[in-house]
Formats: sequence, structure tokens, C-alpha cells
Amino acid sequence: MGIAALGGVGPFEVANAVGLVAFAMVGALKGADADLDLFGIVVLGVITAFGGGATRDVLVGRIPASLLTTTDVAFAFLGVALGVVVWRRVGPVLDHPAVLLPDAVGLAAFAATGALVGTAFGVSPFGVVLLATITGVGGGSIADLLLTRVPIVLREDFYATPAFVGGAVFWAVDQVAAPPAPTATCVGVVLALRLLALHYDWELPTL
Amino acid sequence: MGIAALGGVGPFEVANAVGLVAFAMVGALKGADADLDLFGIVVLGVITAFGGGATRDVLVGRIPASLLTTTDVAFAFLGVALGVVVWRRVGPVLDHPAVLLPDAVGLAAFAATGALVGTAFGVSPFGVVLLATITGVGGGSIADLLLTRVPIVLREDFYATPAFVGGAVFWAVDQVAAPPAPTATCVGVVLALRLLALHYDWELPTL
Amino acid sequence: MGIAALGGVGPFEVANAVGLVAFAMVGALKGADADLDLFGIVVLGVITAFGGGATRDVLVGRIPASLLTTTDVAFAFLGVALGVVVWRRVGPVLDHPAVLLPDAVGLAAFAATGALVGTAFGVSPFGVVLLATITGVGGGSIADLLLTRVPIVLREDFYATPAFVGGAVFWAVDQVAAPPAPTATCVGVVLALRLLALHYDWELPTL
Repeated sequence: MGIAALGGVGPFEVANAVGLVAFAMVGALKGADADLDLFGIVVLGVITAFGGGATRDVLVGRIPASLLTTTDVAFAFLGVALGVVVWRRVGPVLDHPAVLLPDAVGLAAFAATGALVGTAFGVSPFGVVLLATITGVGGGSIADLLLTRVPIVLREDFYATPAFVGGAVFWAVDQVAAPPAPTATCVGVVLALRLLALHYDWELPTL
Repeated sequence: MGIAALGGVGPFEVANAVGLVAFAMVGALKGADADLDLFGIVVLGVITAFGGGATRDVLVGRIPASLLTTTDVAFAFLGVALGVVVWRRVGPVLDHPAVLLPDAVGLAAFAATGALVGTAFGVSPFGVVLLATITGVGGGSIADLLLTRVPIVLREDFYATPAFVGGAVFWAVDQVAAPPAPTATCVGVVLALRLLALHYDWELPTL
Repeated sequence: MGIAALGGVGPFEVANAVGLVAFAMVGALKGADADLDLFGIVVLGVITAFGGGATRDVLVGRIPASLLTTTDVAFAFLGVALGVVVWRRVGPVLDHPAVLLPDAVGLAAFAATGALVGTAFGVSPFGVVLLATITGVGGGSIADLLLTRVPIVLREDFYATPAFVGGAVFWAVDQVAAPPAPTATCVGVVLALRLLALHYDWELPTL
């Protein structure tokens, strides 16, 4: 199934490219923090960049774009390079804006690609929300698992929540407006919610 | 591929619904035990409920039903709600019947759905056994991984064994009897074996 | 999609059989080292043997061969049996040639199957390299995750590197030579690089 099926080349390709660069950067930074050597850093960066989208594509039954196109790979390596450069400047970046900001951008961008693909493959409204969430949190969760950490999606409640809400917003806007409106709104909402959650340290109650 | 391909609507849908509620409840209880906040509990419950079936569907190459239907989601949220209510009553439930019983029920129900799907997609006899096992233990294993615990499937040998045996029993009965006999026998055997293993603390020898 | 689509029965089936036996043996040895009981050892062995190939098949959208054929299962159980026998002789095998050698063989054999499948399904050149790497490191990484260890792919840089290089070599040779040349060269290169890396303790720089 081609990009053309994803409701217009524009929205998907832009969100996908932004998400790949942002998450590859996040993965590389996490890897450097974990004292991985250069190859481990590259591997973790690429996995973080490709993980969510590959899961999304496998769930709807198509070969991950990352295996078919070479551009995706270029974006991932660009992100890894950025991560390496930033880490050399900033040093350990745990909870540093240098990693939180691109992570929020990747979350927003990939949540949108998940909603786009879900809509294109005719999944249920909740399926769109689910795919947006899975695609958004997938890469970072896989990276955390590889580093044997409890994934951020379980540690921080306002990590999956923005992607979840963004997916719902995408679906709603998609009922009434033409591309790229749904994608733009989704990205904006996820990014805003995630950054506000970080700034105001939002939390949900525990039992 | 539709439910119709799964050897009759009845057996699959019943086993699937039971498994979703039971495993969502188990996931929510595990999440509450791990001090996750409400959203983390919901996420873990939904992942535990959907994990095994999504793996099963991806392996046979169809879009997970959980992305296509809204009923699956309703069952998962019902299970999460039950888990939250129970946890409020019982408190920490590690190794408590409140979690072991629904876990055994989910194991039995999902093992049956794995065998049903495997048979419908014409995998090999051992493929049926494998799909029953993977579908049965998948959700709980993913939940354990997300909490960075060695999955119960590796810690307790009579967790995967019942699902394994149940898959074989399903295949055998399916050669001689019509639905819902294979499903009913499979569920009964898995549930009985799992509960007996828990009651008598069955163990296999180590090397 | 049949084996016939994999560029000739010979290369894929041979590499696949060798990889299954080798990785099942590695998984069983890792499981014994981790004090798993017999069933856990079998489960970990089978998962290590099937993990990489199943991921490879799911990524290109076909039902994993391990679910369709019974021969794959036989090879996996043969490997587990070998692992059990060796462990009884050698005892704890962490970093012992008894586990490092079959692991290198499995890495080389599965990297080749990944490249073969990628080529047969017309993925991009980098997609071939990626599939070779994922298929090669997949089984061991899943086994490590199940034991909640940071996967060897992140701990040792010359684990994924040989598979990565092997995939590139396969693609290059495949442009100019007929089967089984690409497979043979790929296996040889991966095995040589991995063993040399182990012997000379190769490492890449950290940041």
C-alpha cells in the first residue's frame, strides 16, 4: 500500500520525517547516557526512530516503509548525528530539554502518522486512537525496554495521554476538514499537551 | 479476514470476550501493585488484554481485531474497571487468587482463540499448538516485560505448559468433533491444568 | 509466499536449519545458566530460534515458516537437546565457547536468511541490510529481554556489526553472482567478523 493511500503525500511524509529525526536523536542521546559505544548508540537511535512506525505498519499489515525507502534511513541517521553532536555539547541529558523537546516532537509527529495510517486502512475510530498512541509511544518504549527500564509510557502518565487525545482529535477533525487540517491539529494538540505536562508536572491520581 | 473464518462466530467471540476481560483485569491489578498511576494502569490493562491476540493476528497476517472492532475495547475497559475495584478492596494482590484466577481464565480463553485462528489460517498442527501458547502467554509476558520482570512464562513452567497442552488437545478434538467441542475442551483442559498446577505447586525438574 | 520465492530452495533452507539448531542451543544454554526449569529452557530455546525469523517474516508480511512447517520445530528441539547435553557437560557457559560459537553461527546463518527474504520481497538495498541485521540479532535480543538483560546487540558493538556488514556484502554479491554465492559469502563474512571480534576483543569508541 503506497504513501498515496495515506490521505495525501504531504501530511504523512512531513510528520514521518520530523518524527524520524526527532526520535533518532532521542534514542542516540539515551544510548550515550547509557554509556553505549558508537554502534550501540546508532542501533538504539535507529530502533527508536523505526520502532513505532514499524509496529504501526505491521499492525495494519504492510511492509514498514523503513524497509522500502532509503529516505527514512537518511532521516534516522541525521537524527543520530544530531544526537551525538548535542550529547558532546551538553553531556548527560536525562530530563534535559535537549532530550525532552525532541521526544515531545517525535511523539506528536508519530501520533499523527499513526492516525493517518489507521484512517487510510479503515480501522475503527478507537483503532485510530490506538494506532496514534502505539505509533507515538512505540519507539521510546522499545528503546527503554532494550535498556531494561520501565518504559516512560508506564512511568509518566502524560506521555501516552497526549498521543491518545491527539488521535481522538485527529479522528474528529478528519470528519469535518480536509488534509492537512487533521494532521496539523493532532500534532499541535499532542505537542502542546506534552510540553504543558512537562512544564506543570501534571500527574494523574494513583489508586 | 473475518470472524466468520474462525470456525463459527460463537466459540471465538465468547473465548475472546472472556479473555479480554480477564487479562485486562490482571493487567490493571499488576499495574496497581506496581504503583502505576491511573493511566499507567489502564495502559497496562489494555496491553495485557490486547497483547496476545495482536501477536496472534500479526503472525497470521491479519489486522488485529482490537483495531477493527469497538467491542474488544469495551471488554478491555470493563476488565480494567473490575481490576481497579478489586484492587481497592483487596489491596496488593501479588499471588492472590484475585489475580491468579482471572489470569488462569485469560490463559485458557486466549489459548483457545489462538488455536481457533491457527486452524482457520491453515497452519501446521504444531503451528496450532504454538499459536495457542503464544496467544495465551503473550499478554501477560508483555505486561511483565513492560514492568521489567522476567515473564511468568519463564518463571513458572506450568504457565505455558497448560496452554501448550490445550493447543494440542484443541487440534486433536478438532479432527473428530464439530465446534464448539474443540474450544470447550481446550478451555477446560488449560484451566484445569493451570489451577491444579497452582494448587499443588507443580514444578518441572531443573537441569 | 513459498520458499521457492526465496531465490532457490538450497541457500535459505540450509541457512535456516543451521541457524535454528544453533540459536535453539544458545537459548537453552542461556536458560540453563539462568536456572530456568526444563520447560523454561525449552521455551527460551524455541523463542531464541524462532524470534529473529518470525520478526523477519512479519516485517515482510508473510506467516512465519515456523508456524507452517514442522521441520523448523524439529530443528529447534534438536538445538535445545544439544544445549541441554552440552550444559550438563560444561556447566555454566557464560562467555564460554560452547555458547559463543553456536551464537556466532546462528548470527551468520540468520543474517543470510534475512538478506534472502529481503531480496525476495524487493525491499530497498538498505532494507536488505536492515533485515539481515534484525533477523541475525532478533532471537538473541528477545531471549535477553525475556531474562531482563540489556540485549547483547547493545552491549557488544561487534555483534550487530557483522550482521550489518554481511547484509551489505550479500546485496553486493547478489548484484553480480548467482545463488548460492551471495548466501555463502554473507555467512562467511559474518562468521569471520564475529569470531575475529571475539578473539581480538574488538570495540568501537564511546563518545
